[in-house]
Amino acid sequence: MRYVRGREHPVSRAQLTEHLGVSRSKVSLVVGQLVRAGLLVEDGLGESDGGRRSSLLRIPREAGLVAAVDLGASSVDVAVTTLSGEVLGRIGEPADIRDGPNRILGRVAELLAGILDEQGVAAREVISVGVGVPGPVEYVSGRPTVPPLMPGWDLYPVREAFADGYDAPVFVDNDVNIMALGEHRYGLGRGVENMLFVKIGSGIGCGIVVGGRLYRGSQGYAGDIGHVQAAPNGPVCACGNVGCVEAMAAAPAIVREAERLAGQDPGGALAALREAGKLDLGSVLKAATYGDTEVVGIVRRSGRIIGETLATLVCVLNPSLIAIGGGVAYAAGHTLLAEIRSAVYRRSLPLATRNLPIDLSELEDAAGVVGASVLATEGVLEVAS
Amino acid sequence: MRYVRGREHPVSRAQLTEHLGVSRSKVSLVVGQLVRAGLLVEDGLGESDGGRRSSLLRIPREAGLVAAVDLGASSVDVAVTTLSGEVLGRIGEPADIRDGPNRILGRVAELLAGILDEQGVAAREVISVGVGVPGPVEYVSGRPTVPPLMPGWDLYPVREAFADGYDAPVFVDNDVNIMALGEHRYGLGRGVENMLFVKIGSGIGCGIVVGGRLYRGSQGYAGDIGHVQAAPNGPVCACGNVGCVEAMAAAPAIVREAERLAGQDPGGALAALREAGKLDLGSVLKAATYGDTEVVGIVRRSGRIIGETLATLVCVLNPSLIAIGGGVAYAAGHTLLAEIRSAVYRRSLPLATRNLPIDLSELEDAAGVVGASVLATEGVLEVAS
Repeated sequence: MRYVRGREHPVSRAQLTEHLGVSRSKVSLVVGQLVRAGLLVEDGLGESDGGRRSSLLRIPREAGLVAAVDLGASSVDVAVTTLSGEVLGRIGEPADIRDGPNRILGRVAELLAGILDEQGVAAREVISVGVGVPGPVEYVSGRPTVPPLMPGWDLYPVREAFADGYDAPVFVDNDVNIMALGEHRYGLGRGVENMLFVKIGSGIGCGIVVGGRLYRGSQGYAGDIGHVQAAPNGPVCACGNVGCVEAMAAAPAIVREAERLAGQDPGGALAALREAGKLDLGSVLKAATYGDTEVVGIVRRSGRIIGETLATLVCVLNPSLIAIGGGVAYAAGHTLLAEIRSAVYRRSLPLATRNLPIDLSELEDAAGVVGASVLATEGVLEVAS
Repeated sequence: MRYVRGREHPVSRAQLTEHLGVSRSKVSLVVGQLVRAGLLVEDGLGESDGGRRSSLLRIPREAGLVAAVDLGASSVDVAVTTLSGEVLGRIGEPADIRDGPNRILGRVAELLAGILDEQGVAAREVISVGVGVPGPVEYVSGRPTVPPLMPGWDLYPVREAFADGYDAPVFVDNDVNIMALGEHRYGLGRGVENMLFVKIGSGIGCGIVVGGRLYRGSQGYAGDIGHVQAAPNGPVCACGNVGCVEAMAAAPAIVREAERLAGQDPGGALAALREAGKLDLGSVLKAATYGDTEVVGIVRRSGRIIGETLATLVCVLNPSLIAIGGGVAYAAGHTLLAEIRSAVYRRSLPLATRNLPIDLSELEDAAGVVGASVLATEGVLEVAS
């Protein structure tokens, strides 16, 4: 089932046989059952490999739809997709997660209802809901747990908020985990066994794919690289420790450092931005892409701190791909990426980096909502099987 | 099959049904096949749960034996075991891995032949061989790869060295990986999903169990925590980088630090040891267990450096157990362990350490050879299935 989806395009029975490593007769048996159940349909003919052209299979829209929700610290992004990951409708808008679950999830319900209405889809066609939140989640219960950026959400029963609108299971996970899922199934990570997805935004986190599956750890808190110590005498972090990677390299740290430098050099580009009342993350990162030395230095410092932590992860996990995403990464572009690469390659053993691409996410800002769709789809198929 | 072994004791069909989560009829079918193939035998009756007492199953010795080899930097340890992990004979002796593959593997062959002879076992009864080596291994080929502590072994075909003596597949892995396997199946880790085994000896490394299986990474180099940077201005490491955990906290670093302090304080315990010509690892660690403040300081420094690195692994992997092993750990005992625990609990998020035991290996110096037996057994059963 996974491969029917993962390939994005219709596949033949022969391709399934090869990819799943089971017998042709087993594939024909199961495919027959799924076709009769309406979960697969025949869809045209594939290319000939010399013999008869074989018919192709795809998951029909009628098999059900998925509601995908990506909550960020400062945005909501929702979509309705097919089980094959095709986005039927998507809408995003700014939002402050600190407004609390009632307001945020109320708005999510409105946005989803709007998409369904626009697409002429009834809510009962939604057979699964996937939600990403910007904080730690106890995956079994689907509840955020002591989330530092989400006051008012601690242990909030996110699943129940969707019970009125949808007769469907709800899967909730950390935002970085769903981005890793999205990137693994539909982005840079297609076919990769072991990869990391690093999000650099208001916070810093990492989604870990091991053996082709998302690795969540024993309680669901794996990948929390934002609170690894980068400097023993660094600034105090929201978590209470000092010198955490997040406190030194995420968006707020970049803005803080820019403010500090603006004060030091009254004639510089940063001081000019401050005078214009534009010393915010967007302007600072834009100035860096123009090559302003002072600003580039700030971005490179973030990249070095993150890269040194990733070097440790490379030693520990020996992945074959690192995808970099999140608002800061997309805005800062190759300056940040080059510094991350440099630190990883310098600090890791050559054996582990011989074939280790480190690249910006292919899905970019859609990684979260696409991943939420994957979470919902794989969750409901697992429950059903 | 795994559960029949993992439980160490004979089990009933009902227990298998429960543990494997498959139907009673499926279990009966497969067990019947295995009994007819001679891979399982009925062995007495279990306790009654109200109804008829059910017969118990165990893997008979006649199903085949395993040769297990644990090569350390300064020792060889070999054993012959059953597929259930029962050790029939075991022998270990000091050896210098730098003597190269011909001498070391020649001696291993003699030691194994001696055990077989003593037990009255023919070499053809050995159906699988497991070997651990103190360096990185490309698991697919079974060859050590640029192993820093093993000059002369780079890309050596370890498997072929056993081809003359045994008509059996040979599985080769890193020594820390096999210790993790041993501890997971027969030690502290029984039933644990996600755990770390940290070896502290001449080198420092970590075996990672994820979802109940050993995690090797994309090329087989996962768990290499010895070369994570602990201090940007630390001493130069054998790997060429500076400030690696191994260069700062493993056995040679402890002896070097003891020598430095012996020079600083001519009246101290370390200077006395040096005068007596006994300033070696064993004496230093023994002095620490007697509570000599100066020496305790050295051990605590090692513990702190290792613990801070493990704190990062706890954030990244959220394991539910950390087992500590290796010669330094067993000799230094609770002084080292207490400092490791303290650093991990101080630097990790409380959520991830709420239920995180950090304990000395239960198998102690047998972890390697037991793990080599597990590697061989699971390898041959996987090939066969």
